[in-house]
Amino acid sequence: MNETLALSKALINRNSVTPEDAGCQKLLCDRLEPYGFTVENMRFEEVDNIWLRRGTERPLLCFAGHTDVVPTGPITDWDSDPFNAEIREGLLYGRGAADMKSSIAAFTVASERFVKDFPEHEGSIAYLITSDEEGPSVNGTVKVIEALEARNEKIDWCLVGEPSSKDTLGDVIKNGRRGSLNGYLTIYGQQGHVAYPHLADNPMHLAAPMLAELVAMEWDKGNEFFPPTTFQVSNINSGTGATNVIPGQVDIIFNFRFSTEVTADQLKQRVQDLLEKHGLDVELKWILSGVPFLTAEGELVAAAVESIKEVTGTDTELSTSGGTSDGRFIAPTGAQVLELGPRNATIHQINECVEVDDLEPLEEIYYRIMKKLLA
Amino acid sequence: MNETLALSKALINRNSVTPEDAGCQKLLCDRLEPYGFTVENMRFEEVDNIWLRRGTERPLLCFAGHTDVVPTGPITDWDSDPFNAEIREGLLYGRGAADMKSSIAAFTVASERFVKDFPEHEGSIAYLITSDEEGPSVNGTVKVIEALEARNEKIDWCLVGEPSSKDTLGDVIKNGRRGSLNGYLTIYGQQGHVAYPHLADNPMHLAAPMLAELVAMEWDKGNEFFPPTTFQVSNINSGTGATNVIPGQVDIIFNFRFSTEVTADQLKQRVQDLLEKHGLDVELKWILSGVPFLTAEGELVAAAVESIKEVTGTDTELSTSGGTSDGRFIAPTGAQVLELGPRNATIHQINECVEVDDLEPLEEIYYRIMKKLLA
Repeated sequence: MNETLALSKALINRNSVTPEDAGCQKLLCDRLEPYGFTVENMRFEEVDNIWLRRGTERPLLCFAGHTDVVPTGPITDWDSDPFNAEIREGLLYGRGAADMKSSIAAFTVASERFVKDFPEHEGSIAYLITSDEEGPSVNGTVKVIEALEARNEKIDWCLVGEPSSKDTLGDVIKNGRRGSLNGYLTIYGQQGHVAYPHLADNPMHLAAPMLAELVAMEWDKGNEFFPPTTFQVSNINSGTGATNVIPGQVDIIFNFRFSTEVTADQLKQRVQDLLEKHGLDVELKWILSGVPFLTAEGELVAAAVESIKEVTGTDTELSTSGGTSDGRFIAPTGAQVLELGPRNATIHQINECVEVDDLEPLEEIYYRIMKKLLA
Repeated sequence: MNETLALSKALINRNSVTPEDAGCQKLLCDRLEPYGFTVENMRFEEVDNIWLRRGTERPLLCFAGHTDVVPTGPITDWDSDPFNAEIREGLLYGRGAADMKSSIAAFTVASERFVKDFPEHEGSIAYLITSDEEGPSVNGTVKVIEALEARNEKIDWCLVGEPSSKDTLGDVIKNGRRGSLNGYLTIYGQQGHVAYPHLADNPMHLAAPMLAELVAMEWDKGNEFFPPTTFQVSNINSGTGATNVIPGQVDIIFNFRFSTEVTADQLKQRVQDLLEKHGLDVELKWILSGVPFLTAEGELVAAAVESIKEVTGTDTELSTSGGTSDGRFIAPTGAQVLELGPRNATIHQINECVEVDDLEPLEEIYYRIMKKLLA
């Protein structure tokens, strides 16, 4: 059995539903410490995080990832125990198999091999591992980065092990992510009886023309790296439950996934202008979950593209699509950030799995990237 | 103390929050039986109803009303016990004072007097009293009417004691009511992740342009007796609570209060056409709470208008505005239906009350209507 597969299984067998780490991080520390990594535990509230580093010089190449996994869903829907890794027909099954315990296993094994081969490598190698990526993401990567920034410890290149591949290993790497902005909007009217609408002011009727305009808006056209900014209403609630009462307010939650062609402030202003144009009495709160980031080019992108080509023969595609990742917390420090991992077809699903035959090539890709950057 | 006031207080002192009758009906029966009324108890499930009749001939004049009252709300907000009638500064306070125990008292006293004065009156006098008008209205008037229809017992004139007056006693009587039609609409989309809107289909985005059109529609222009038909959304709900999920459906409840210028079927068709025009995948259920009814003219209206003028000097206004009443169940049998009662300014409110000085005139109005129709 290859080493990456063995370590993947050992990690999957630990039930680390977010925010639990369930000993995964200790396993990594126990393996990497003998190879000269300094271990720093950074627990914030209920979240375990580790920061491992080998070397004190720059440039610093950091592997980032998370040991926590999403819940299993109905466990009886799984064909095997999600926390007892099992191989069937060439696939390794278990919660976290793709997202992202195999990546963690692969870059751990790659580091061990690289340090054995190049004990006097240039710069430094680090690991930033959290158990709060699938949860609120409050006491995880964001806090570790704050601690590093406070002591001016800078990451130059960050490789996040998120499952970026689509159809075949390495066909897609993510070199950026869109921003995410949530709006919490309350539109006020005047409560009353449906039989006396002239004495009330229905907030849903006030909202409808504005909403029709809002959902039809074009926010930008995107650019070479980003698809156009999207707007989606996620929740709308109004009403007392009774059929004869006009409620006094309607609550709407919406989300922007936005490109680098627009700023969060510009989006806010356009929504504000629309609300004013419709003369609505509103309360509006904003939560910025992440600004967009982009690693358009550089040594890290080059090393990744070349290594994938060498190992798999694939011309990889750079993409910024999809959801947010912890890369959004790391990129603002100035680091080049790239996400590269196994296929994401089954993540968060029942019977999550990864191709066993992808594990050694993935480890080899990580190894070659290290070699190109630090050997 | 006048008799109507005494009986009003006795009724108010019985805690008959819907669907409880709390002995009110027995009190009426005990008073009216000696005057030659035949008592018929018509209990359906948890609801007490009585049908009293004096005489077997037509025309039949029926007094209709309810002994149940709405809940008190926070009892500490009341200045006196809502179930212990109290007079302060010329006002009789208590839950049900206006809606509608004073009316019941007034027409009971009026009947006693009328029967004493005209023991050989023409036609018949009846009482249809329920304790389920403020509740679901399932086992009340509607069931009694079914029973009467089944044996072909016909009401010619029905005087409902609902508090119809606005500023002074008798200034408004209701000679009809709008219809009420509820729609329960579900619009289906495709659930997904807000980061991948191209893989989802946001039902709120699909609904918004249709809703904007729906709330702007004119349904009719009303007529001499009815204001224009109104459309109001009462409830709208969509979303999982999460900010990153596009939900699969949006649920909307809406209500029409409609005039005699349009039918329920026409309203349904227009909504259906609009949904089809927008190409929406929907489920739509309808509940018709009541068809509109109108007693434009006739002996009952004439007797009421004249009696009010004689007693109060007021030229009464015929109106069809406001919420539904049990008149909607009685009118379809072919009866002329009119609602006439005290001022409605405080109904369903804290410190519900009625002017003490209105009680004897109200009794006198009912007496004169009986006299004009049956003496």
